[in-house]
Amino acid sequence: MNRLRFLTSGESHGKCLTAIIEGVPAGFRIKTSIINEDLARRQVGYGRGGRMKIEHDTVEIKSGVRFGKSTGAPICLEVRNKDYENWSDVMNVEHQEYPTQEVIKKIEEKSFTTVRPGHADYAGAIKYNFSDLRDVLERSSARKTAIEVAVGSVAKQILREFGIMGFSHVVQIGNVKLDFYPKTYTLIKEKAEKSDVRCADDLTADRMRNAIDEAALAGDTLGGKFEVIFGNLPIGLGSYVHWDEALDGRIAQAVMSIPAVKAVEVGAGVDAASLKGSQMHDELFIGRDKKVFRNTNNAGGLEGGMTNGETLVIKGTMKAIPTMKKALATIDINDMKPASAHFERSDTCAVPACAVVAEARIAIILADALLEKLGGDNLKEIKERYA
Amino acid sequence: MNRLRFLTSGESHGKCLTAIIEGVPAGFRIKTSIINEDLARRQVGYGRGGRMKIEHDTVEIKSGVRFGKSTGAPICLEVRNKDYENWSDVMNVEHQEYPTQEVIKKIEEKSFTTVRPGHADYAGAIKYNFSDLRDVLERSSARKTAIEVAVGSVAKQILREFGIMGFSHVVQIGNVKLDFYPKTYTLIKEKAEKSDVRCADDLTADRMRNAIDEAALAGDTLGGKFEVIFGNLPIGLGSYVHWDEALDGRIAQAVMSIPAVKAVEVGAGVDAASLKGSQMHDELFIGRDKKVFRNTNNAGGLEGGMTNGETLVIKGTMKAIPTMKKALATIDINDMKPASAHFERSDTCAVPACAVVAEARIAIILADALLEKLGGDNLKEIKERYA
Amino acid sequence: MNRLRFLTSGESHGKCLTAIIEGVPAGFRIKTSIINEDLARRQVGYGRGGRMKIEHDTVEIKSGVRFGKSTGAPICLEVRNKDYENWSDVMNVEHQEYPTQEVIKKIEEKSFTTVRPGHADYAGAIKYNFSDLRDVLERSSARKTAIEVAVGSVAKQILREFGIMGFSHVVQIGNVKLDFYPKTYTLIKEKAEKSDVRCADDLTADRMRNAIDEAALAGDTLGGKFEVIFGNLPIGLGSYVHWDEALDGRIAQAVMSIPAVKAVEVGAGVDAASLKGSQMHDELFIGRDKKVFRNTNNAGGLEGGMTNGETLVIKGTMKAIPTMKKALATIDINDMKPASAHFERSDTCAVPACAVVAEARIAIILADALLEKLGGDNLKEIKERYA
Amino acid sequence: MNRLRFLTSGESHGKCLTAIIEGVPAGFRIKTSIINEDLARRQVGYGRGGRMKIEHDTVEIKSGVRFGKSTGAPICLEVRNKDYENWSDVMNVEHQEYPTQEVIKKIEEKSFTTVRPGHADYAGAIKYNFSDLRDVLERSSARKTAIEVAVGSVAKQILREFGIMGFSHVVQIGNVKLDFYPKTYTLIKEKAEKSDVRCADDLTADRMRNAIDEAALAGDTLGGKFEVIFGNLPIGLGSYVHWDEALDGRIAQAVMSIPAVKAVEVGAGVDAASLKGSQMHDELFIGRDKKVFRNTNNAGGLEGGMTNGETLVIKGTMKAIPTMKKALATIDINDMKPASAHFERSDTCAVPACAVVAEARIAIILADALLEKLGGDNLKEIKERYA
Repeated sequence: MNRLRFLTSGESHGKCLTAIIEGVPAGFRIKTSIINEDLARRQVGYGRGGRMKIEHDTVEIKSGVRFGKSTGAPICLEVRNKDYENWSDVMNVEHQEYPTQEVIKKIEEKSFTTVRPGHADYAGAIKYNFSDLRDVLERSSARKTAIEVAVGSVAKQILREFGIMGFSHVVQIGNVKLDFYPKTYTLIKEKAEKSDVRCADDLTADRMRNAIDEAALAGDTLGGKFEVIFGNLPIGLGSYVHWDEALDGRIAQAVMSIPAVKAVEVGAGVDAASLKGSQMHDELFIGRDKKVFRNTNNAGGLEGGMTNGETLVIKGTMKAIPTMKKALATIDINDMKPASAHFERSDTCAVPACAVVAEARIAIILADALLEKLGGDNLKEIKERYA
Repeated sequence: MNRLRFLTSGESHGKCLTAIIEGVPAGFRIKTSIINEDLARRQVGYGRGGRMKIEHDTVEIKSGVRFGKSTGAPICLEVRNKDYENWSDVMNVEHQEYPTQEVIKKIEEKSFTTVRPGHADYAGAIKYNFSDLRDVLERSSARKTAIEVAVGSVAKQILREFGIMGFSHVVQIGNVKLDFYPKTYTLIKEKAEKSDVRCADDLTADRMRNAIDEAALAGDTLGGKFEVIFGNLPIGLGSYVHWDEALDGRIAQAVMSIPAVKAVEVGAGVDAASLKGSQMHDELFIGRDKKVFRNTNNAGGLEGGMTNGETLVIKGTMKAIPTMKKALATIDINDMKPASAHFERSDTCAVPACAVVAEARIAIILADALLEKLGGDNLKEIKERYA
Repeated sequence: MNRLRFLTSGESHGKCLTAIIEGVPAGFRIKTSIINEDLARRQVGYGRGGRMKIEHDTVEIKSGVRFGKSTGAPICLEVRNKDYENWSDVMNVEHQEYPTQEVIKKIEEKSFTTVRPGHADYAGAIKYNFSDLRDVLERSSARKTAIEVAVGSVAKQILREFGIMGFSHVVQIGNVKLDFYPKTYTLIKEKAEKSDVRCADDLTADRMRNAIDEAALAGDTLGGKFEVIFGNLPIGLGSYVHWDEALDGRIAQAVMSIPAVKAVEVGAGVDAASLKGSQMHDELFIGRDKKVFRNTNNAGGLEGGMTNGETLVIKGTMKAIPTMKKALATIDINDMKPASAHFERSDTCAVPACAVVAEARIAIILADALLEKLGGDNLKEIKERYA
Repeated sequence: MNRLRFLTSGESHGKCLTAIIEGVPAGFRIKTSIINEDLARRQVGYGRGGRMKIEHDTVEIKSGVRFGKSTGAPICLEVRNKDYENWSDVMNVEHQEYPTQEVIKKIEEKSFTTVRPGHADYAGAIKYNFSDLRDVLERSSARKTAIEVAVGSVAKQILREFGIMGFSHVVQIGNVKLDFYPKTYTLIKEKAEKSDVRCADDLTADRMRNAIDEAALAGDTLGGKFEVIFGNLPIGLGSYVHWDEALDGRIAQAVMSIPAVKAVEVGAGVDAASLKGSQMHDELFIGRDKKVFRNTNNAGGLEGGMTNGETLVIKGTMKAIPTMKKALATIDINDMKPASAHFERSDTCAVPACAVVAEARIAIILADALLEKLGGDNLKEIKERYA
């Protein structure tokens, strides 16, 4: 298992976000510009706050690629935090023996001790023994998903060599649900890509924006639901032979661990609970072209923990953003007295961005499973095997 | 990461199911009888088929335990398949140079080539290059979850040393949902343990049994939904610092990879999509005893990928069993022609068993995260650390 | 990395030794009889003690193989300890509430508290908080290498499908060194296989036996040195791109962690320290058949952490067995007073067995690296890729 | 297992070397200046070539540390390649659609196709399907060990909190061996640190320098042998319970996978082959202070794969550098004809640097094993546990 390994680092207001990806075979075309497009897709989104205006994320490939092609060596990606210049004193890596009054003031301004319910603050402070919740916020922030999108973009460029493509779209924001689906995945993708709420239906998108405006006015925030679709996958990625090889489980981990995600569904998902066997299972037929086909896809492309040749359909549910103007009752970890939650500049709704992150993470899992199945050390031999 | 490692082996009608668990520190009390109780809990269930009457699973501890206590060495567990004596020719490990006509006949009787929709058959045959789908069925069968329940029982015995307890109950079978919840977790647990549909409300349980009877009559099968609860967990298991350490993701993988599970939810789960931030997030208060408390638990005990001191609440959705008398349209992998699906003795509804499996797997994840946090090689030093 | 995973369990006088191997693709021929041959090879050896007369190890394949071929499912191997019947009270898995006097006596007879220098006793007792050193002895014993030889035999059966073969021979016991090498690897292999000291030269073998006899008479023990050779390996197993993928490192781990091994060498090994660059490096030539060849193999078949097409040559040094009649000064962990070391029935020299264990472990590493490079889920597709 | 994970990236003449370390608990003091000192230690060395004059490595901590203390978040380290400015065209990450003649010329100048015997060139080109051996050289170069030294320095800063200290020294270069050892480890360390051949005896050091001069004059290169020592380790790091947990194996992997290392020895190492049991094993005594002591350390501080309270003593053998002026016979992978090996600026002897790398890698293994044993998420609780 696990041909692709990667680690990420970086804080929300630190110098940069970094990733090292190990296991990409040699010869794959990896383009900076494509990664930048994916980074931009994550930043689009009606209802994002001021931070998105500061950061227009771009990646720098620092190693593992030469003349536009992977060399088999670990690939290092860096996304700089442009906002860092305003935070260099607060996020200083070095111990300051004699900080100036000005520096002390800056640090204190950014320190906080009132727990934000729904965030990592409370458990994080206890776990890591922090007195300043800034130390929790900086790494627990969803800012780190930017570098995951960059890693996912590399994974997507690997998948693309084999004709495997995917996308994501938003199917619910607050109470507004997408009821009308365009007829084909191509149409859904096109519409969603153009929408600032990543919604494939214009009228629904309008209603989503209205819901976001209303929530923003009320100092509140919204969650929602998104769908990630991948097509053209070979049959047999993942396995049933051991519990940790099942592809559904690996995807579920990747999506559920995205900050704020509270549910992951495959195919029919929670609706499967009320479907009878005769309704649930996707019958197999033979077409005139002698090819196997199915008329339904309740399995969401996964049977027995393996890709079954149908389109992969994964749904994720994101809770509303926990940082909000409308203050929630909470406690101060300093004196353990009641308090009102710290507010840090934030978004009203981040479901579209979350969809892009999920798409990236699923791409990583799929590229990993594909490379594991194909083996090989360079694109030439891998392509020959795939053919 | 990962203090506990384990591998399992075994086929549905092979000699036995086996597990080796590595990483249990020395000095933990591990009782065969407690594992057997958990194995029996998995086998209870209204709507289970004939197999359950043949197999009354019991475990044999083969190593890693001496005089009732773990020694730090890998623990080997074996659950024998009593049915094997009827299958020894069909599941023979050895190559038969000159099998008798009788043996050939037996093998042929158990071979099949008509894909069961919803099962691993189709993708499995292609992936592993099998011409007899028996080779897929034997390992992809949910029979293997019996040994996972045994592993989970060891994990629960580890957790119990620290006062951490959990249980599972069924909240939906087919269209019948549990609407009335007993007031305390203790009550839910007690009622569910006594119920053959693992349901905490008698009236709902009756309706569930009826639904199962109806489905059975129609040759159909039912899915459903279950909930796993763990209480008394320390704060700070899991982490937000790296994506694969988040406890929600690790639990999601463990539950989603159970055969037939199609959705995993934490706390409010899919309902989180329509809750506003002000509704979703669990406010913190200070009690008169100076202790932190919350009145809600939409987070399901996990914030920032860590336990936050509240009760862990995980929901899983199981699809209806794919093996059913009512034949589904399918194909024969031998001649690639239309066919009707193979039927192997099966259950009508296995949601209660699935709940027990999920409980076991979550126990494994929790014991792993706990031991990782505590470190240590023997119970004495670990207990001192915990205090 | 890591296509093959395995865990082992079992104590020296427990019920059995078990292994579960995960990651063997489907379709490989796995024969019980071949594993048994390898188990027997480990038990041969001039200078082995009485235990070897009790145990004639044979394996039972319990799962993962059907009709002589792997199914892709985890393979479970069990080697029973025949001696267990005499130890069932002492090694009882269950807690005895009211043990009989006879049982208590048996247990006490086998308990000991005087540390054996050179063994795991001292550190093990402290680490795992044991008061009976029996609890250390049982798992730290080299008895567990029997099941590793079984796992290695499966690995060798995988390698054999690709024409990759290996063997081991002893080059030193005590002060007696092998100075005369038969001219070809085939000859060395043949001679060594027939020798009860696994030595390829008859005269040297005689001197080795004499040295063992002398040591035995003196109540002393002997160590030595062995060599493991694998030929016909494809070029490019392992890698230089990341430190933990280098094949030399993976092999070194596998060999050094065999009980009693104190040194691992690749090719020229420690002699490389005094060779100049112009002497050390193996020049490349082109033959008349247009094939690349080399006249030397100081690199031992590994350059840049990868197989380079030459024969793999690994040397291991085993220290003398720490269990000996000639008592060493030591301490009693019970009262922390001076004592003389516990003596448990043991061998005088186990270098030939150690060579077989190293051969097995290296086979595991090679099969893992090969499967990782080839990918694939069944023998058919893997063979096509190899061709 | 494995509390500490890390990945590195970077090419010899690329932009930078990077590492991400995951698993460092919060609250540890991590100083840039200490890492820089270790980087400088690696660069010292009589017999190093011109490159060392260009690069005076310094590290930048990019994340995971705030105000001089670890935050529990992944730590990112970067060492820039100052030489990159001269190589930016040759090592360009981006595909150049229309490179200028000047750029093409530069690239061609740095391309080569004649295999350097002893290097990764031949196997690397075949494995990754490269036509320009520059693509092998850049990552297989020992340049990447600079960032490993930085990672090791972080590990040493972790160990230092628990009083665990280590060092390395050179015991052989070419035929010149260290015969006279200063009496204490403190003395050896002090002397070695001041020596440009990292040798603890001045006369031997002189002879080593002479040997290097002679080799350099002859266009040849030298290897040698080094020793890494760590003291004050707690008893019981590592384990005998499973083969991949044995500390000797983990250390052997870490050292053997350093480029050019061909042998790893623990304690008596290869000399153990000829020692009798009565000579080899380190007897235990009780001192007047009631403390356990030993008069010998042939085990090198490891028994049963665990630290035993004695000083850890590891030896490594490095082969002579394969890049040398004196051309070796080889082949050209372009036309597969005989050729003479490519020469890239290089050192005559790098044994002192190799010793520092081994020291760093062993520190990583030890810090990993220590944190695994201690568990915990912040320095405060970990220190309490250690006490």
